[in-house]
Amino acid sequence: MSHKLLLLTRENEIYHQLLSDLALPNLTIVDEQPAQISSTDIWLAEPGLAAPLISVGHSLQWLQSTFAGVDKLMQLKRPLSCQLTNIKGVFGPLMSEYVFGYLLNIYRQQGLYAAQQRQQLWQEGEYRTLQGKTLVVLGTGSIGSHLAQTAHHFGMKALGVSRRGRATAGFERVYEISQFASIISCADVLVNALPHTPQTVHLLNGELLSKLPQNATLFNVGRGSAIILDELTQLLQQRADLTAVLDVFEQEPLHSSHKIWQQANAIITPHIAAPSFPEQVVQIFADNYQRFCQQQPLMNLVDISAGY
Amino acid sequence: MSHKLLLLTRENEIYHQLLSDLALPNLTIVDEQPAQISSTDIWLAEPGLAAPLISVGHSLQWLQSTFAGVDKLMQLKRPLSCQLTNIKGVFGPLMSEYVFGYLLNIYRQQGLYAAQQRQQLWQEGEYRTLQGKTLVVLGTGSIGSHLAQTAHHFGMKALGVSRRGRATAGFERVYEISQFASIISCADVLVNALPHTPQTVHLLNGELLSKLPQNATLFNVGRGSAIILDELTQLLQQRADLTAVLDVFEQEPLHSSHKIWQQANAIITPHIAAPSFPEQVVQIFADNYQRFCQQQPLMNLVDISAGY
Repeated sequence: MSHKLLLLTRENEIYHQLLSDLALPNLTIVDEQPAQISSTDIWLAEPGLAAPLISVGHSLQWLQSTFAGVDKLMQLKRPLSCQLTNIKGVFGPLMSEYVFGYLLNIYRQQGLYAAQQRQQLWQEGEYRTLQGKTLVVLGTGSIGSHLAQTAHHFGMKALGVSRRGRATAGFERVYEISQFASIISCADVLVNALPHTPQTVHLLNGELLSKLPQNATLFNVGRGSAIILDELTQLLQQRADLTAVLDVFEQEPLHSSHKIWQQANAIITPHIAAPSFPEQVVQIFADNYQRFCQQQPLMNLVDISAGY
Repeated sequence: MSHKLLLLTRENEIYHQLLSDLALPNLTIVDEQPAQISSTDIWLAEPGLAAPLISVGHSLQWLQSTFAGVDKLMQLKRPLSCQLTNIKGVFGPLMSEYVFGYLLNIYRQQGLYAAQQRQQLWQEGEYRTLQGKTLVVLGTGSIGSHLAQTAHHFGMKALGVSRRGRATAGFERVYEISQFASIISCADVLVNALPHTPQTVHLLNGELLSKLPQNATLFNVGRGSAIILDELTQLLQQRADLTAVLDVFEQEPLHSSHKIWQQANAIITPHIAAPSFPEQVVQIFADNYQRFCQQQPLMNLVDISAGY
């Protein structure tokens, strides 16, 4: 049986080339024209580009997202009726690069030394090390696990928080999300790596975040909706000891007039913590394509009722 | 038998307190007065503070350095005749913090995103990851080993270079120093972690470093004497693709007029990559003191003929 694939990414050329190189059997890549879209049974797509076209995807059976976050496909008028798979398991090392890169920048005072270099000033700063500090990760999937391993490598303690609080390799202990408020005061470093679900929206409000301990660092690499940004901005204004490193926002791009851009103890990056590399996405797609053809269960299947 | 300890550090008060807390048997801490110095048989000292006093240390039997680097005690008119021990094994995690902190800053374009934040600019940069890159470490001791482990954790390959080229855990392969010139072109990241010895002085000259591959990053966390600084400065002027991160210099403090301070692709820090924490030093001293009293071989004994 032959299949038709629709590509909906901002890097279609690269994907086209990578897929052609693999020469997957019985698979034709078709152009993005309305008449063609409706006849394609498989989409390899960015959720934001696929969402507005779902209603004309009359033949769509399987949508492979090129991203981890699929919330744009959860907010449709009608719930998605095809199989939806996402990218999992490849973001851990990239997230660790992002989180520990900024964490070490902050702890090891790279900003101070850069300023001193501009003045040709040779002067030791105060010294902070990651050793002995506690990392709390919201979300204990493959990203959270990798962050916990990296924390251990640097001599930190790693605690996890998840929906069910199930013990997970790499974490000293995992708490249920209902217990989070009681342990946030232990979090020298707090990383949100939760997906967007109704339960995670605005979880991190100003009152909760105000319980962070002295000199804590907050990261958001999950979804922007987890944080009430205006309340966080206010908290950062009041507490200069805190630092927030934010890669995701409820409104992306973050509006240029938002005050947090100028907040000295906020670091803002444009959703670049862990990009999907086409080479990795195509590998996952190819594995799943084989399963799809053999009518086996797909990998990284999204539970549409749970939202991730 | 009772012993007299002379403290020669810039943190004598802290050391005094920590040692008093341990209450080591038969050990008296004495003041730094000429008459007293000559009667002390044990010194706990920074090499640079001890060196000028060695000639009056008539009773000195054992000198525990508070640093790893003891080259200032190797340049005396008369070779040291007492036992010399240094600090080893505690610097690996701190060096990994320093090296990988700066490496991730560079690879993940923290400077670019900071500049964009000042302009409220939401724009993805080009993407580089540590995954798949090659780290070459000069020196395969405890520091080199920890760097190699950290490299593996981030998906890099780690090659070592040592005097004898002996296989060492954590490194894919260890080369003899004589083979270094033939593998430097593989070094996406080159870290010098060698001690100061006659063989390592000016090892990294301009000609050799010019063989570094495109976009390579050079670290010096060993001793300043390993690099010919003026030749490196010239190379950095010619090759904007290279970055050098330097924590140690032949002349410390680095003279404020040196051109490398202003070199855009150089990062200069004031010998802070891996400080000795008094708590760790005192622990090592206490272990060695027990051995000294029982006339057992000391730990971390420096081979004075080899220089480390």
